[in-house]
Amino acid sequence: MSKPCIICVAITGSVPRKSDNPAVPITLSEQVESTHAAYEAGASICHAHVRNDDETPSSDPEKFARLKEGLKAHCPGMILQFSTGGRSGAGKERGGMLSLRPDMASLSVGSNNFPTRVYENPPDLVDWLASEMLTYQIKPEIEAFDLSHIHQAAKMQADGRLAAPAYVQFVMGVKNAMPADRDVFDYYVRTMARLLPDSEWCAAGIGRHQIEVNEWSVAAGGHART
Amino acid sequence: MSKPCIICVAITGSVPRKSDNPAVPITLSEQVESTHAAYEAGASICHAHVRNDDETPSSDPEKFARLKEGLKAHCPGMILQFSTGGRSGAGKERGGMLSLRPDMASLSVGSNNFPTRVYENPPDLVDWLASEMLTYQIKPEIEAFDLSHIHQAAKMQADGRLAAPAYVQFVMGVKNAMPADRDVFDYYVRTMARLLPDSEWCAAGIGRHQIEVNEWSVAAGGHART
Ligand SMILES: [Zn+2]
Ligand SMILES: [Zn+2]
Ligand SMILES: [Zn+2]
Ligand SMILES: [Zn+2]
Repeated sequence: MSKPCIICVAITGSVPRKSDNPAVPITLSEQVESTHAAYEAGASICHAHVRNDDETPSSDPEKFARLKEGLKAHCPGMILQFSTGGRSGAGKERGGMLSLRPDMASLSVGSNNFPTRVYENPPDLVDWLASEMLTYQIKPEIEAFDLSHIHQAAKMQADGRLAAPAYVQFVMGVKNAMPADRDVFDYYVRTMARLLPDSEWCAAGIGRHQIEVNEWSVAAGGHART
Repeated sequence: MSKPCIICVAITGSVPRKSDNPAVPITLSEQVESTHAAYEAGASICHAHVRNDDETPSSDPEKFARLKEGLKAHCPGMILQFSTGGRSGAGKERGGMLSLRPDMASLSVGSNNFPTRVYENPPDLVDWLASEMLTYQIKPEIEAFDLSHIHQAAKMQADGRLAAPAYVQFVMGVKNAMPADRDVFDYYVRTMARLLPDSEWCAAGIGRHQIEVNEWSVAAGGHART
């Protein structure tokens, strides 16, 4: 019996604007609409960012609250995952919406380079976000932008900073971070089996790598991020 | 015929103070003295930081110039490697001494967490340090604190930002970065063979991992950092 494949839909992200792609959902009603279509098509997790009216990324808890309300009404049973990613705010702002108790939230446990800057996740912020997720019983999706992030997640689970079992997402294809490399993908899968044997994982290929990485992931027993 | 093993001695580092270990060489004459002892014992590379009079790390080119002068006189033929690490300065300060044309300089090509902070190596700074090393014909020692840093070095060599062949150091055992993990070490070695087949590598285990990682490294055909 094959295990069910979880499809995780990232409806908006924090970067693309309407000028890049007029189909990017920006307003809350566009986001709810777009998520509902994915939900009907079988997606089971919604990874959500929110935006300001000028399309810039936001970490405003009020916007997250309204998104949660809309999605719970339109997509019953869908797992809602809030982004705590660094593009939407600085420091503890990034976790200001966790008290809304989404089902899941993204959690970066290490730092790495992005195309033009450092993606900063200082150790004390990581620990604080993880503790908020324990407090509000939110399941983290660990964003593994590099190999050591899987090791760090295993360590945090072993010492109680994260609840078991872990859910890890391999992020591949971000310029200046880990490329979409098949050998690394296979090693990530082996590392998960070795360090976090009861956990689940998924993989996200960024930009032109999306389809390829999804194929690797589904074939290897992981979940897929669109 | 086995290839000669390069022993790289890091005489001072940027963190320990006299109060931690009275034997840490701080002044230039202490550094030259200590390096000379390692040179006599067979070390072939000296990885050097310089300090201010109050023992804090410095990036003062004048201090590096005097260190270079002292070492060239006392340890003829020893390879001198200047640190461009982030503890000694911010931004381009970190490379201000490269015009002194040391034989080598350390180069981080990605960012990662350190025990209490983010080790920030933004992409534009990495590219600038690499270009200075090309200009002054300095051989970089790539500091691989994580797996993607090896991929980044290979990419930078392929597109001409680094001169071939690469010399990579695996850094293991830093809290919140890559642990001293034997399986990862073996995968690093395979990754070097796959992505940078003509390169050399060494491995540094931090603190209590030093001896263990050196043993792995020498046994696997790499060089050793003390
Ligand atoms: Zn996201
Ligand atoms: Zn996912
Ligand atoms: Zn150093
Ligand atoms: Zn070395």
